[in-house]
Amino acid sequence: MTVDDAASPAAEAATPGTPSAPQGPHGYAKQKDQHLKRLRRIEGQVRGLQRMVEEDVYCIDILTQVSAGTKALQSFALQLLEEHLRHCVADAAIQGGPEADAKVAEATAAIARLLRS
Amino acid sequence: MTVDDAASPAAEAATPGTPSAPQGPHGYAKQKDQHLKRLRRIEGQVRGLQRMVEEDVYCIDILTQVSAGTKALQSFALQLLEEHLRHCVADAAIQGGPEADAKVAEATAAIARLLRS
Amino acid sequence: MTVDDAASPAAEAATPGTPSAPQGPHGYAKQKDQHLKRLRRIEGQVRGLQRMVEEDVYCIDILTQVSAGTKALQSFALQLLEEHLRHCVADAAIQGGPEADAKVAEATAAIARLLRS
Amino acid sequence: MTVDDAASPAAEAATPGTPSAPQGPHGYAKQKDQHLKRLRRIEGQVRGLQRMVEEDVYCIDILTQVSAGTKALQSFALQLLEEHLRHCVADAAIQGGPEADAKVAEATAAIARLLRS
Repeated sequence: MTVDDAASPAAEAATPGTPSAPQGPHGYAKQKDQHLKRLRRIEGQVRGLQRMVEEDVYCIDILTQVSAGTKALQSFALQLLEEHLRHCVADAAIQGGPEADAKVAEATAAIARLLRS
Repeated sequence: MTVDDAASPAAEAATPGTPSAPQGPHGYAKQKDQHLKRLRRIEGQVRGLQRMVEEDVYCIDILTQVSAGTKALQSFALQLLEEHLRHCVADAAIQGGPEADAKVAEATAAIARLLRS
Repeated sequence: MTVDDAASPAAEAATPGTPSAPQGPHGYAKQKDQHLKRLRRIEGQVRGLQRMVEEDVYCIDILTQVSAGTKALQSFALQLLEEHLRHCVADAAIQGGPEADAKVAEATAAIARLLRS
Repeated sequence: MTVDDAASPAAEAATPGTPSAPQGPHGYAKQKDQHLKRLRRIEGQVRGLQRMVEEDVYCIDILTQVSAGTKALQSFALQLLEEHLRHCVADAAIQGGPEADAKVAEATAAIARLLRS
């Protein structure tokens, strides 16, 4: 893992040579393509659910597909969260002060929402 | 969101030429339109997530949106499950025999998958 | 599964002196001993958590144990739910009428609470 | 509920003979008493479930109580996790190096287990 160079000033510059490229400000910038691919697959799962309903597929089979979609969304969330902890929360910890505390509280609240959903 | 216009051209017309359209064989047949509308809204949420990633929206805000999507999928699942219990499982109970037991076991397994996802 | 013979040595004797214990009125009555055994195991897990906190065990190990406890509670809930569907809900379906509908709505609400917890 | 008297006999002795007890090395050390109180309340809930099963309480009411217990366990986990992020993970971030990465990966895995449970 070359996560540590993330600590350096340029960390976020996913594509440094692109001058007008908006600096992805967040931890997940590098995985952007991977995230988008995942989300498109989830979108396909949701469209598959619509087809199943239209074609009167058996309820239980639809429920199985819903579970798969939910699981995929949560995997995406976990990956995003890991990058967030690794970058935003860690950076705030290094800065210290109330901002560090606030970042941890904010991340915990997000985890609580995931748990309740 | 232009999700709803997906409804207009035909979307719901699963079996257009069937005058006395056989009631879809499953419990959710009557709520079909409502289910499809819900699922299109969820599809819109997942597309919204892609936009958020593309526009480098703050991780925590994306996570909040993921929680909303997961919740929406689970509400859909619960509604489908309720209709399944009300029709398929109840009908099997009235018939009695091993089929009734099998239906309950199958529904419980589906609930377990939802809980674990 | 040889779960039932676990009941023999004493099954921790819920009400030992009651020879012809009246069958509890609910679906889970027959599995009572098994349920009580499960719940005592979960109680032991929660006491184990207290010991871990007292002995300053590493947070992550405590969290792993919490996950195990939550999973055990949910397995118990699923088993109870299955018996409820198999007996109370099925009986109401056979009776028919508004009571049947009410039972399904009630069970679905309970499942929703489990999903949200 | 006579949950609290569970605390009296000894409550497994929070700080028995150790006068200058070294502060537990982990983030949750300061909240120890609060955590133990919470866990004893959860233990009381699980004992309450046993009573409900013994007294043939209606299944749905038992399920409601299970949801409450699960929720309480997850609240405990979230609080522990927040302290863990605030102390152990933040400290590791300040130190930097592979240890920082390992702590984040470990915390994420724990969150994944909570989500799946």
